[in-house]
Amino acid sequence: MNVENRAEDFVHRLDAAAKAVEDKLDALLAPGPLAGEIERPARLLGAIRYSTLGGGKRLRPFLVLESARLFGFEGDGPLRAGCALEMIHCYSLVHDDLPAMDDDDLRRGRPTTHKAFDEATAILAGDALLTHAFDVLADSATHPDATIRCNLVLALARAAGLGGMVGGQALDLGAETARGALSQQEILTLQAMKTGALLRFAVDAGAILGRADEARGQALSRYGAALGAAFQIADDILDAEGDAAALGKRAGKDAERGKATLVGLLGLETAKARRNALVDEAIAALNATGLGSATATLAEAAQFVARRNN
Amino acid sequence: MNVENRAEDFVHRLDAAAKAVEDKLDALLAPGPLAGEIERPARLLGAIRYSTLGGGKRLRPFLVLESARLFGFEGDGPLRAGCALEMIHCYSLVHDDLPAMDDDDLRRGRPTTHKAFDEATAILAGDALLTHAFDVLADSATHPDATIRCNLVLALARAAGLGGMVGGQALDLGAETARGALSQQEILTLQAMKTGALLRFAVDAGAILGRADEARGQALSRYGAALGAAFQIADDILDAEGDAAALGKRAGKDAERGKATLVGLLGLETAKARRNALVDEAIAALNATGLGSATATLAEAAQFVARRNN
Repeated sequence: MNVENRAEDFVHRLDAAAKAVEDKLDALLAPGPLAGEIERPARLLGAIRYSTLGGGKRLRPFLVLESARLFGFEGDGPLRAGCALEMIHCYSLVHDDLPAMDDDDLRRGRPTTHKAFDEATAILAGDALLTHAFDVLADSATHPDATIRCNLVLALARAAGLGGMVGGQALDLGAETARGALSQQEILTLQAMKTGALLRFAVDAGAILGRADEARGQALSRYGAALGAAFQIADDILDAEGDAAALGKRAGKDAERGKATLVGLLGLETAKARRNALVDEAIAALNATGLGSATATLAEAAQFVARRNN
Repeated sequence: MNVENRAEDFVHRLDAAAKAVEDKLDALLAPGPLAGEIERPARLLGAIRYSTLGGGKRLRPFLVLESARLFGFEGDGPLRAGCALEMIHCYSLVHDDLPAMDDDDLRRGRPTTHKAFDEATAILAGDALLTHAFDVLADSATHPDATIRCNLVLALARAAGLGGMVGGQALDLGAETARGALSQQEILTLQAMKTGALLRFAVDAGAILGRADEARGQALSRYGAALGAAFQIADDILDAEGDAAALGKRAGKDAERGKATLVGLLGLETAKARRNALVDEAIAALNATGLGSATATLAEAAQFVARRNN
């Protein structure tokens, strides 16, 4: 395939995965309580569904599906793991949008959850989504082997918690107060935690589900780390260039808020060169798996993440 | 032992367990990151430790320890499971105290987390604690058998999430708006979710860790449900009688806020009779386990919870 056909094929695969993820999330967040649950209150469930369903490229679940497929593992297990990850991603958006955090009224053109419902309901919807992600992973429907399921729970907890995403958000809030006083290394650590850790978990989850050998698991993890860094720098570039449409939110906000970004520190051109180098690094890591053309879709995902203009 | 000696012995055991729990929580929330974590940001970790360490009777972990001991399972595993449960309890207090929720400035005589730090940090500290609870359960240090660990994760997620504690809090917020329009059954469901589910999980966790047979597990679960209901009604009675010292918070707040309580619905005397009946029910469930005098401490726990005056 030529470059354009590859990109088109990629978008087709991404859309198909998004549809499957949407259907599975819809089923996982149905009104009927599971064994051990008492009831699922309607308004809270409504806020959870509002926060989770109806949109998004579902990039993180897609990466889970594609990574697991490298190791011959397809079907409901990777889809469930992808949905668990998406629940974490969605809860983090709900909490980040709160007045005490980023104080955003709109997300993807719709009122944020605390605007559509109320602040208390948004806090609780986030808490419930976060909790439910671990339910989905620990359920035997995700993988027949309980050790694999525990490894998924551990990996997600470490990617999403104190030493990962939540910790990164805390560092970011501190950085806003410090107004740009962060070093390049501090920014890289912050971004690796805030956005990188979940993206890396996506490919790690595929490797865990598919019982990848250690060398391949590590190569895939390097891919995930490079992809996550490319994703963040592409986001910073879009914000600086003012491309609100591609960004899905108002541009120029980072600078206004005094957020420390690599674009601010390195300048736009150096940042773009760095982004491209990260894509090369991601693809080199894929090649190191020795899985050949099976990794073509993940290679395309790295290009897609860096472009972020479709 | 006579009644007074039994009560004294019980308090001694409870204190010893609280000390062990405190030490283990301190170790689990140390600065050093685990494998898969990037770093633990100091201010966030400080808020988490502030919210978790330094107090409380640690009733929930105590129930885990005592329940597991019924089945011959002691040591680090039940202690870790108890700490995971305590993390969930503590996160729920941090989020419930937020301005958008109960808006409390003090808890156990100290500023609440959002007052001692800031609101964003309190939200994130709660999120990180909630996440970390599942890390602790899924780690092989909690039990050598991964199926047992997955069962703990599932049971805790269902007790704490949408169909349990978080759902109960959402119903409670709705009830405040509705101002007392709840039926007795609705109040019972709300309370079973908001406070009962975690207390019941405590004894279920002991049964899961100790591989209790189904009949004993179910009897213990009935004990946990009765204990949870007795706990809540005792809390409502203390609030109505204005015993701020025993309650650990300002009394009379429930009525002020228009919270639906059984005391409000049934009157104080009927509520007390109901509380006593629940203690009898809890003890009958213990007797149904056929474990004899081994359950004496749990029987004392039911009395203790109903008294709540020490």
